[in-house]
Amino acid sequence: MEMSFAVLGAGRIGQVHAEVIAATPGARLAAVADPIAAAAQRLSDAYGSDIRSIDEIEAADDIEAVIICTPTNTHADLIERFCRAGKAVFCEKPVDLSLERVKTCLGVVKETDGKLMVGFNRRFDPDFNALRAAIDQGRIGAVEMVTITSRDPGPPPYDYIKSSGGILRDMTIHDFDVARWMLGEEVQTVMAAGSVLVDPNIGKLGDFDSVNIVLRTPSGKQCTITNSRRASYGYDQRIEVHGSDGSAAARNTHEANIEIAGSAGYHRPPLLNFFMTRYKAAYAAEIAAFIEAVQSGGPMPTTGHDGLMALALAEAALASIGDERVVNMSEFLD
Amino acid sequence: MEMSFAVLGAGRIGQVHAEVIAATPGARLAAVADPIAAAAQRLSDAYGSDIRSIDEIEAADDIEAVIICTPTNTHADLIERFCRAGKAVFCEKPVDLSLERVKTCLGVVKETDGKLMVGFNRRFDPDFNALRAAIDQGRIGAVEMVTITSRDPGPPPYDYIKSSGGILRDMTIHDFDVARWMLGEEVQTVMAAGSVLVDPNIGKLGDFDSVNIVLRTPSGKQCTITNSRRASYGYDQRIEVHGSDGSAAARNTHEANIEIAGSAGYHRPPLLNFFMTRYKAAYAAEIAAFIEAVQSGGPMPTTGHDGLMALALAEAALASIGDERVVNMSEFLD
Amino acid sequence: MEMSFAVLGAGRIGQVHAEVIAATPGARLAAVADPIAAAAQRLSDAYGSDIRSIDEIEAADDIEAVIICTPTNTHADLIERFCRAGKAVFCEKPVDLSLERVKTCLGVVKETDGKLMVGFNRRFDPDFNALRAAIDQGRIGAVEMVTITSRDPGPPPYDYIKSSGGILRDMTIHDFDVARWMLGEEVQTVMAAGSVLVDPNIGKLGDFDSVNIVLRTPSGKQCTITNSRRASYGYDQRIEVHGSDGSAAARNTHEANIEIAGSAGYHRPPLLNFFMTRYKAAYAAEIAAFIEAVQSGGPMPTTGHDGLMALALAEAALASIGDERVVNMSEFLD
Amino acid sequence: MEMSFAVLGAGRIGQVHAEVIAATPGARLAAVADPIAAAAQRLSDAYGSDIRSIDEIEAADDIEAVIICTPTNTHADLIERFCRAGKAVFCEKPVDLSLERVKTCLGVVKETDGKLMVGFNRRFDPDFNALRAAIDQGRIGAVEMVTITSRDPGPPPYDYIKSSGGILRDMTIHDFDVARWMLGEEVQTVMAAGSVLVDPNIGKLGDFDSVNIVLRTPSGKQCTITNSRRASYGYDQRIEVHGSDGSAAARNTHEANIEIAGSAGYHRPPLLNFFMTRYKAAYAAEIAAFIEAVQSGGPMPTTGHDGLMALALAEAALASIGDERVVNMSEFLD
Repeated sequence: MEMSFAVLGAGRIGQVHAEVIAATPGARLAAVADPIAAAAQRLSDAYGSDIRSIDEIEAADDIEAVIICTPTNTHADLIERFCRAGKAVFCEKPVDLSLERVKTCLGVVKETDGKLMVGFNRRFDPDFNALRAAIDQGRIGAVEMVTITSRDPGPPPYDYIKSSGGILRDMTIHDFDVARWMLGEEVQTVMAAGSVLVDPNIGKLGDFDSVNIVLRTPSGKQCTITNSRRASYGYDQRIEVHGSDGSAAARNTHEANIEIAGSAGYHRPPLLNFFMTRYKAAYAAEIAAFIEAVQSGGPMPTTGHDGLMALALAEAALASIGDERVVNMSEFLD
Repeated sequence: MEMSFAVLGAGRIGQVHAEVIAATPGARLAAVADPIAAAAQRLSDAYGSDIRSIDEIEAADDIEAVIICTPTNTHADLIERFCRAGKAVFCEKPVDLSLERVKTCLGVVKETDGKLMVGFNRRFDPDFNALRAAIDQGRIGAVEMVTITSRDPGPPPYDYIKSSGGILRDMTIHDFDVARWMLGEEVQTVMAAGSVLVDPNIGKLGDFDSVNIVLRTPSGKQCTITNSRRASYGYDQRIEVHGSDGSAAARNTHEANIEIAGSAGYHRPPLLNFFMTRYKAAYAAEIAAFIEAVQSGGPMPTTGHDGLMALALAEAALASIGDERVVNMSEFLD
Repeated sequence: MEMSFAVLGAGRIGQVHAEVIAATPGARLAAVADPIAAAAQRLSDAYGSDIRSIDEIEAADDIEAVIICTPTNTHADLIERFCRAGKAVFCEKPVDLSLERVKTCLGVVKETDGKLMVGFNRRFDPDFNALRAAIDQGRIGAVEMVTITSRDPGPPPYDYIKSSGGILRDMTIHDFDVARWMLGEEVQTVMAAGSVLVDPNIGKLGDFDSVNIVLRTPSGKQCTITNSRRASYGYDQRIEVHGSDGSAAARNTHEANIEIAGSAGYHRPPLLNFFMTRYKAAYAAEIAAFIEAVQSGGPMPTTGHDGLMALALAEAALASIGDERVVNMSEFLD
Repeated sequence: MEMSFAVLGAGRIGQVHAEVIAATPGARLAAVADPIAAAAQRLSDAYGSDIRSIDEIEAADDIEAVIICTPTNTHADLIERFCRAGKAVFCEKPVDLSLERVKTCLGVVKETDGKLMVGFNRRFDPDFNALRAAIDQGRIGAVEMVTITSRDPGPPPYDYIKSSGGILRDMTIHDFDVARWMLGEEVQTVMAAGSVLVDPNIGKLGDFDSVNIVLRTPSGKQCTITNSRRASYGYDQRIEVHGSDGSAAARNTHEANIEIAGSAGYHRPPLLNFFMTRYKAAYAAEIAAFIEAVQSGGPMPTTGHDGLMALALAEAALASIGDERVVNMSEFLD
C-alpha cells in the first residue's frame, strides 16, 4: 500500500528526500511546501507533486507523513503540530538547538503518541551497517574503543555557521549519534578540545573548525571523535571499533575504485566529496526504514530520544572546552 | 520528452532492464511480451505496463524502442523485424551464434537505417569508465598490454551451457569487447588455451570452464584474458592496462567496504557475486546512453559491429584451441 | 674507523642491541655486563665479546660507547657515571620514572658535556620517517591534527607492570615522543581518559590498560593517542597526520604481503606482533644514527631532553585522569 | 660450524652474494676471484677476503663452497670443474644458454655426485613463500590457474641484451621457474606472443621487450606470464594463484608503507625498483638454504634440473613465437 508524503522545505536536503521518495517503491510525493515559490515549483516540476501550504498539508486527509526539512528553529513547532495532526513525522536533525525545547517537544510527541523519526542518516549507510552487523555477530568480541574520523571537504558559509549552533551541534552531532550506536552503552563523561585552524573568521563567530572529543561510558568503554572542517581529499568518514577479540573498520568511499601507477607512485581518486553522493544509499535506506516502521507500527529506528542524547553530548563537549574539565552527562540529563 | 519502451522477454535479464527503465527519468515501460504468461504478468504487475504480443508491439504507434531479451536464436530475426518497423532496438549480446547470420542481420540494419545497440554492459561500468578516462587523459601513456580477469562465481546450468555456444561465445565475449575497448586497436591474432577444471560434465558438453586467451594487434599491443567458471569469493571482474608511462587497474567490488582484524588476520567481505548487483550502475547507465543516442540521433555507443567483432574473436579463439595454432582474424572477417 | 661498544644488561632489549651492533659495519661489540652470568654468557657466546663488570667497562680504554639496557631505576646513575667517564651513552627510555631525577641527571650530562642519546626507536622506523619526510616536503601543508594508534598484542607480566610506572610512562611514552615529533611544536595542554578493560588485575595494580589522550599546542594543533594493552591481530602501530592541504598515514606491517580470497572473503595475515620484528629496521637505524652522531660530533638525534618531555607528558596525563581536568604542561616544566 | 666460501666474479650479482655471506652467521667469505683486479679488490676490501685465482680456489683446502657469478658462457665449465674438485657449487642462472650444454653439464654433476644449487632467488622471497605455504595448507583448494606479472623498471643495456639470450632466456626464465613451483606439475604445452613496444632497437637485436606466455599442464592447469621491459612505477613482481576453493595473491613491495591524501587523490610511493632491494631478503634466505642443504646433506632446494626445465620452457616459448603455434615440451625434453 502506497504511502503519501509531503516534504516541508524544498532546500538542499528537501530535494534529497524528495528524490528518494520519488524513487522508493511504495512511496509517493504528494505535496511540497516552501515559502520560496521557486524552490517549491522546482520540486513540483521534477516529481509532479502539488504545491501546498503547511496549513493545507496539516489539514490534508491524503497526506500520511511529512518530512521536515525547514530551518532548525522551526523543527520543534512543526513536530508538535504534525504529531497532533496524527501524521507520521520524519525530521532532519537537530530537533532544536535548545535542550529544554527538545525535551518539551518530545513530551508532546509522547503525549500525542506521535510517530517521530529523527534523521541520522549515517545509521543507514550500508558499510556502517555491515560494521555494526560484524560487531553484533561477535566478530571482535566486546566493544572497548571506538574511533570516529569525520572531516568535511570545506567549511560551510558564515551565515550557516551563525545559525548552526556551532560545529559540535551541527557536525559532531552525527558522530555523537554514531558513537552511541557503536558503543552500545550511554556515555558518562565527555572531554573535548577545540581549535581554530582552518579559518580565523570561524573563531570570530565563536565557533571551532577542528575538534577532538573523548567519550567514556560507565563500564569504561571509550570513544574518540576527530572532526575537521577541511579535507582536501574529500568527505572523510571513517569508523573503527576495537574490541576484546579484534578490530573492525569502515573505510572511505572513493570517486572510483581504480588505481593508477606511474613514476610518482600509485594513485587512487579522491573521496566522494559531498554528503549527498557519499550517503546516497543511506538516504534511501533511511526513508525505507521510516516507511517500514510507520506501516508495521514498530519502533522508529532513530527516535527523538536519539536526537536529544546527541544534542546533550554536544552541550557537554561545549562545557568541557569552556571549563577545561571533564564533564559528567548527569549535568545535562535528568 | 519521455521515451516509451517495450521489453521482449521477461526472464532474468528482461527484469533487469524493466527495473532500470522504470527507474530512469524520461523512460516509460509501456509494454512487455513473453510467451510465458506468468513471467509477463510479473513484470506487468511490478511496473504497471501492458502485456502485449510481439506482433502488437511491432505494430504499436506508442512504442518507440524495444529491448530484446529473448533467447539468443531469436535475436537476429527480432532485430530485423523491429528495425524494419522503425523502432529503436536494444539487443542483448550476442546478435547470433553464427557469424554469417550476424553479418546478414547487420546488413538489414544498415539497409533500413536502423538504430541498433548491442548490450555490452561493462562499457558502462563507472569504474571501468574511470579507467578508460584515465587512459584517454594520457595518464599511462600509450597502451601496451591489457590484462582482463573475469571469473564467474559458479558455472551456469547444463541446459544453459548447451545453448550458449560455449564459454568463449557466452562469457568471454564480454571480455573480447572490453579488450577491443581498452586496446583501442583491432586484434590481428588470437591464441587460446582451454581446460576443464571445474566440472567434467562441462567437458562432456564440448565446452571448457577455464580459458586463457592472448590477443595481439598489428602494432604489437597485447591483451590476456583469464576466465574461470568458478570463484569462491564472488564475481571477479578486473581490468589492468599497462602503458608506456604507467599502469591503471580497476579493482573488484566487495559486498561492503569494511575490514575486520582478528587473531587470524585481516578480513574483508567477499565480492558482490551476481552480475545484476555488480553491474547495477552499468545497466542503468547503458539504458541512459541508449536513450540519449536515440533522442540525439547520435551514434550508438555499442553497435552491431561491436557484437560482430566480439563474436569473431570468440570464433578465432575456438579455432586456436582446436588447431593448436595462432589464428589470424582475417580468416573470420572480410 | 670502528666504534667499540659495551652493552650493559643482557636481557631482551640488550640482546636486540647486541645483535644490531654485531651486524652494523663500523661497530664492534667489545664487552657485555650483566649480574646474571648466564645472560652475559649467552651474548658473549653469540657475538664473541668479553664479559666484564660495569666498573671494568667504566675504566676501559677500549670502550668508546655504552648501551644501557639495565632496569629503569639504574638508568640515571649509569648515565651520570659513563658521561663522567667520557663515554658516549645510549640509554633505553625512560631515563627515570621521576621527573626530578631526570632533570638532575640531565644536569650532569650538561655539566660533563656528555653525549647522551635516549632510545626512542620509532623515530627511526623507515615508514614513519617517510611520513615525516612527506610532511617536511610540504605534501600535506601545515600540520593540524595527529592521530596515533598504538596497541600491544597483549599486556606485559604483572611484575613488569608493577615496576613500569604504569601504561602512560611505559607504553604511551613512545607515543608522546612521536606526537612531539609529528606536531613540530611543544604541547601546552593534556587531557586523558583511562580504563581497565583488558584485565581487572591491571586495575588492582593501580594501572590502566586502555587510554585515550588529547594533546593541544599553543597554536591549536591537536594530537590524539589511542592505546590498548591488547590487539588480537598483532602489534598495531599507526600514525596519521592531517594538514591544511591533505593527510598522510603510515600503515601497519603484516606478517606477509599476501591476500587470500575464499568463500568467507578476502584475508590478509595478522600484523607482525612483536616489537623486535616490527621495529627491526628501526633498531638498526637507531644505532647507526648514534654512531654517526658520536663520530661526527653532531647533535644526538634523540636527546635527554626528549626523554624528559615525553615523561612530563605522561605525568600530565596521569594528573588529568586523576583530577578529571585539562592539565597545563607548565605545571611540570620550568 | 662455519662454512667457507669463494665468490667467482665480483660484478653486481657477485657483490650481492658477498654481502649476504658476510652477514650470514655460520658463513665466511674466504676468497674472491675476478679477472678485473679492481672489482676483486673492492670485495676484498669490503669483507676482508683473499683475492685468489680460480685455479687457486679450485685447489684450496680451506674453501668448501663457491658462488659462480661469472659471465653465463663460463657457468657450465666452472660447475663441472668445481663439482670435480668436490666443492659445493651455487651457480647463478642460467647454467648455459644451450639446452644441450646444460644437459651435458648436469651429467657431470650427477657422475661426480656434485652438490649444485641454481640460483632462482624468487623461490626464497618471504611473500612468495607465504603464498606457496597458503596453497600447501589447502587454503585455495587445488591449483587451477596461475598469473605471473613481472615487469622490469627499464630495459638493460644493449650489450647485455646481446649476450643474454633474449628476454625469454634472461628475464622470463625466473617466471618459468616460479610457474613450475606454483603449478606443482610440469608444463606440457607452451604458447607465446612477443612484441617490441618499448624500444625498436631491442627488436633490431632480434629480441622482444613485451611478451605473454600461456603454459598448460597435462591435467589442464594453466599459467599466464606477462613480462615487460618497462614499468615507470618500479619493479613489478606479482603472483596470483587461482584454485578450486579460492585465490591467493602476493602483492608488490612499495618504497614505504605510507599513503598521502590530497586534492588530487590518494597516493602511495612507487615500488622498490631494483632487484637487489626488492629481493634482499630472498638473496639472504637463498644462501642460508644452500648452507643448510650442504651441511645437512639434504637435497638442494633449487637444482640443476630446475635450471634445465626453465631454459627448456624459454626455448619452447621462442619456438611458439617463431612458428605461431602451440609447442609441446616433448620437443625439448627426452
